[in-house]
Amino acid sequence: VPLPQHIQTVDPAHAWRLLNTGATVLVSATHGGRSNVMAAAWNMALDYAPVPKVAVVIDKSTFTRGLIESSGRFALGAPTQGIADATYTLGSLSGRDAPGANKLDALGINWFVPEGLHDTPPLVAGCAGWLLCERIAEPHIESTYDLFLGRICAAWADERAFINGKFKPIEQIPPALRTIHHLGGGEFVVPGAQVKAQSGGWK
Amino acid sequence: VPLPQHIQTVDPAHAWRLLNTGATVLVSATHGGRSNVMAAAWNMALDYAPVPKVAVVIDKSTFTRGLIESSGRFALGAPTQGIADATYTLGSLSGRDAPGANKLDALGINWFVPEGLHDTPPLVAGCAGWLLCERIAEPHIESTYDLFLGRICAAWADERAFINGKFKPIEQIPPALRTIHHLGGGEFVVPGAQVKAQSGGWK
Repeated sequence: VPLPQHIQTVDPAHAWRLLNTGATVLVSATHGGRSNVMAAAWNMALDYAPVPKVAVVIDKSTFTRGLIESSGRFALGAPTQGIADATYTLGSLSGRDAPGANKLDALGINWFVPEGLHDTPPLVAGCAGWLLCERIAEPHIESTYDLFLGRICAAWADERAFINGKFKPIEQIPPALRTIHHLGGGEFVVPGAQVKAQSGGWK
Repeated sequence: VPLPQHIQTVDPAHAWRLLNTGATVLVSATHGGRSNVMAAAWNMALDYAPVPKVAVVIDKSTFTRGLIESSGRFALGAPTQGIADATYTLGSLSGRDAPGANKLDALGINWFVPEGLHDTPPLVAGCAGWLLCERIAEPHIESTYDLFLGRICAAWADERAFINGKFKPIEQIPPALRTIHHLGGGEFVVPGAQVKAQSGGWK
């Protein structure tokens, strides 16, 4: 099958909405037969048109960073309440210490790669959506601020959470598929309500 | 009084936690007798030590951007459900069109400046917390990506939402004081549950 059940492609121009509510992300990278995934609360959309872009902070100490620098690519996934433990585990253990070439396999965490793609960072199963990005090389801000920029070249989402380019109303998303937002130390808040604001005018 | 009721100072080293869950922010700036505030979903913490820093995307079309470039300072506030309408209004109307020198006054939105500070961007009342930042001048990424970096020089929070350097457990925060996370078009999700993840180990 081209994609796992419930997973659909997303127009990269709409992928910013997967990041807009500020969920923690999982950052994946692959190079030279090694694959790794780390967690990153410090991420944001950077543009939606004409070139959809993201920004993410990736510390110098991480194993993932070297794979991104070598391969020029990374993927972001927006994990959900259903994989909160896996997310915290990926953020707590370094792939440098993994017994094997793929941190996800070493932790027993499921992943997939869309059919037809090669040498692609693994997408962690159970996310609400994923973005495949090409690194935009900006060596000064990478070395000074650990700040990485990427061009979104493809995106996917779980249709039970995100469809037609946007999240479903929160009450229609099963709790296990709602995004998680890191407070720190493995504590996350999860969206529970949705409000529609009204714009006022000049007094 | 030095600060409004319930508002306490926050150690800048802990201010990253105000941004960590990905809430939309209000960006304030003041210069030459003009004050302005805009909304920005694309924001993140950039560091907590040794120098606490933030990153935020500020479009070239905004009135706020010129005030930041001229003054070298900006403030971020994390708005709450109680001021969702004001947040959307601030994001929908440009201060360039405001009848008066202060967009907040022109919209009837309350604000304050902590005692002893001068020429300081207005802090919008009703936020869970605020960060006062000095712009870190990086002209290349500002002009290419609309990406602004700042050094956090002071921070404050509403003790009913954020105390001792972190958010209170979500069930202890009154709904009106919970942060809002922008889906787009004035629709926001609001945290409703909190989970403590457990870290696993290698298989």
